[in-house]
Amino acid sequence: MALFHARMDVRIPHDLDPDVRADIVAREKAYSQELQRAGKWPHIWRIAGEYSNISILDVADADELHTMLSALPLFPYMEIKVTALATHPSDINAG
Amino acid sequence: MALFHARMDVRIPHDLDPDVRADIVAREKAYSQELQRAGKWPHIWRIAGEYSNISILDVADADELHTMLSALPLFPYMEIKVTALATHPSDINAG
Amino acid sequence: MALFHARMDVRIPHDLDPDVRADIVAREKAYSQELQRAGKWPHIWRIAGEYSNISILDVADADELHTMLSALPLFPYMEIKVTALATHPSDINAG
Amino acid sequence: MALFHARMDVRIPHDLDPDVRADIVAREKAYSQELQRAGKWPHIWRIAGEYSNISILDVADADELHTMLSALPLFPYMEIKVTALATHPSDINAG
Amino acid sequence: MALFHARMDVRIPHDLDPDVRADIVAREKAYSQELQRAGKWPHIWRIAGEYSNISILDVADADELHTMLSALPLFPYMEIKVTALATHPSDINAG
Amino acid sequence: MALFHARMDVRIPHDLDPDVRADIVAREKAYSQELQRAGKWPHIWRIAGEYSNISILDVADADELHTMLSALPLFPYMEIKVTALATHPSDINAG
Amino acid sequence: MALFHARMDVRIPHDLDPDVRADIVAREKAYSQELQRAGKWPHIWRIAGEYSNISILDVADADELHTMLSALPLFPYMEIKVTALATHPSDINAG
Amino acid sequence: MALFHARMDVRIPHDLDPDVRADIVAREKAYSQELQRAGKWPHIWRIAGEYSNISILDVADADELHTMLSALPLFPYMEIKVTALATHPSDINAG
Amino acid sequence: MALFHARMDVRIPHDLDPDVRADIVAREKAYSQELQRAGKWPHIWRIAGEYSNISILDVADADELHTMLSALPLFPYMEIKVTALATHPSDINAG
Amino acid sequence: MALFHARMDVRIPHDLDPDVRADIVAREKAYSQELQRAGKWPHIWRIAGEYSNISILDVADADELHTMLSALPLFPYMEIKVTALATHPSDINAG
Repeated sequence: MALFHARMDVRIPHDLDPDVRADIVAREKAYSQELQRAGKWPHIWRIAGEYSNISILDVADADELHTMLSALPLFPYMEIKVTALATHPSDINAG
Repeated sequence: MALFHARMDVRIPHDLDPDVRADIVAREKAYSQELQRAGKWPHIWRIAGEYSNISILDVADADELHTMLSALPLFPYMEIKVTALATHPSDINAG
Repeated sequence: MALFHARMDVRIPHDLDPDVRADIVAREKAYSQELQRAGKWPHIWRIAGEYSNISILDVADADELHTMLSALPLFPYMEIKVTALATHPSDINAG
Repeated sequence: MALFHARMDVRIPHDLDPDVRADIVAREKAYSQELQRAGKWPHIWRIAGEYSNISILDVADADELHTMLSALPLFPYMEIKVTALATHPSDINAG
Repeated sequence: MALFHARMDVRIPHDLDPDVRADIVAREKAYSQELQRAGKWPHIWRIAGEYSNISILDVADADELHTMLSALPLFPYMEIKVTALATHPSDINAG
Repeated sequence: MALFHARMDVRIPHDLDPDVRADIVAREKAYSQELQRAGKWPHIWRIAGEYSNISILDVADADELHTMLSALPLFPYMEIKVTALATHPSDINAG
Repeated sequence: MALFHARMDVRIPHDLDPDVRADIVAREKAYSQELQRAGKWPHIWRIAGEYSNISILDVADADELHTMLSALPLFPYMEIKVTALATHPSDINAG
Repeated sequence: MALFHARMDVRIPHDLDPDVRADIVAREKAYSQELQRAGKWPHIWRIAGEYSNISILDVADADELHTMLSALPLFPYMEIKVTALATHPSDINAG
Repeated sequence: MALFHARMDVRIPHDLDPDVRADIVAREKAYSQELQRAGKWPHIWRIAGEYSNISILDVADADELHTMLSALPLFPYMEIKVTALATHPSDINAG
Repeated sequence: MALFHARMDVRIPHDLDPDVRADIVAREKAYSQELQRAGKWPHIWRIAGEYSNISILDVADADELHTMLSALPLFPYMEIKVTALATHPSDINAG
């Protein structure tokens, strides 16, 4: 398995139709929670004061990660920055 | 409790005495693991390819966070950037 | 309690309807003053020459901070950057 | 009177003599507290996780500000960024 | 009196009505020249190759500066960065 | 398998002993070529005009990548930035 | 022959007609694959989590590179950054 | 005479009328070539992969430079950055 | 004549001999004042809170400017950024 | 042939032996002029106010460019940024 850190900044255009927007946000939440339940998205935090999140993704590889992230309903409206994570030698939970 | 995200980049001067360095790194590991066991430092990951980590800290408040981080043996040799985390509305473990 | 520093840069689109804009700005002011009176927003300063402010927020935690800031009428039109504050050891008012 | 916001990042060289360093830090604290007591430095906060502070200075003008800051014992070891503050129209304490 | 340095970058939207634009630019020039004649805006230079200026403002304080700059007809279309100036010890006109 | 892009900028201190330096550079080359022969480091290019390379690494996962990169003799003297690569939908070799 | 590294970030406006968009993306893929088959574009990778690619181009010179890239159907909607590559002295495949 | 280096990045809005755009680009080329023939614009190069140029301008002074550049038909759609050039002491054509 | 704006940031190494430093600073001041008296350096301001100045230089051309600045005793210890200034069309003293 | 633009920023350590420094600078000049005479380095300009140059290099390819630049006596003390140049369609000397 492969662990990735992602920061996602949401930038929805101000003139997007409110119904379209509400629908996208609702589908985003449903899809995110489905991935969380599947264990693919173990952590998601809100960055205080920003329409942004920091997430940890746990996937087979970068291909699965990209497929997953690019399927997010908000993907066209987000700036995402991915960082590949390795095991830290001080981690008490590591092997 | 308060949750913080921290990125720590280690920059040890090349001319630091190797014994001093080894001692600092050993004490850093011990202290980090002690805080992990106490539940104050629930996650630590290595950023692949860099002498850096991304950590999640779980503390009473920013005062405890600063006291804890500034007591790290590597603190004088690290650049640390803290981000305050809030609960994400899509988090299935929230609420 | 938790103290946060925030810099807020306002970027209202030029084509926003002037009445909508005036209403948002009026509600922003009312809401900000309500929070100031409640002691949640002890300081707000204008950055000279910019449509921006620097604020100090005094809240229970990052969750309350995010709830409060994301409820600002101008939130969709602001770029906000939050910094977590700790007590400074030289502060004469500190414990 | 003139209000200024300053962010000060301390960068003491690793090879500075420990006694010299301790003396500078002690004198810095004494001088800072003297200025706080005189009402010139109404707020000083630690940025959580960094050897940095955010301060509010209340002085006659930029000349007094520069004289004051450049007299700080840590001045040669700090990177300081000053922002001029104006009254915010929503400030309930203004006017 | 207080001296400030300001860099102003003009960014007028391409789709602004040409008559509106011409009117704003004309009023900007008139207002700027009125402030120059009043001694509040002693210097204004064009940055070669850019729709930008570097200015020196001579005002009572940051409140007057902000009132003045935010009243510029181009203010909604400019990015302004202010720097507080102090007397330089080598200035032959100082003291 | 996992594919990573890495940019490595070499910054050897000017005062490093020339023999130590020559030894590090020689060991770096030998180790890099051993990894190339093992198929772990399929591409390495010099950035024209800079003491830097752009590399493609083909490893089991981020743990192997970090172990491999942090074992480079030049690792303490390099700034490395890793990017996780996924298959591009237009790639004629993907499949 | 000349080797170039290019990072291409796609930024298609949200209000582009979906049919126009689909047509551009389809033509981009066809053209990219034609160039890949011709050996001019030996590598193309997706940056995980971003609508971006990292590519290696193998052309006669910078003129051919620019002609090729500026003919991409997505060129008006991409930010491209080119880096000239030289042979790395450790490359086992280098002459 | 005064020598300036300029980098010009063209950013034409996607929704500009194609005929208007074609006209601007044609007039830009004609004007640029007229200035080249007059010896005012001795060099113009395309940055490979970008809708940008690097130019050397040879004019009387910064006033002539600004008059010339701000008269470019593409000026409202370009970001320009000017650098003042001096004679290099190693230049074999100098002095 | 040619007008330039320069920002100069002084970065004297902490381990420079105090006598050497005092001598450099004294010669810098004398040379700066000589140039001010000659009308070559009409304005010099201190940036409040920083060991930096903002200056206006009035010279024959960029060659004279570079000769003048590179002869400053502090030149080896300064980061200088020059901006070429043109006449602003709103300047009441122009024309 | 291949044309490249390079910006070179010189950063010689303050504690380099003055004789070593003088020798490096003298050899740099001789080598640069030899390359200029050979037609490989058609232009070199000083950036006014900085210990930096902007150069145009005319070489067979990126390999020759890197060999040439990395052989500069000042190479270990310079930060170099290379940009690949293509023919500009408005260039009256092209074609």
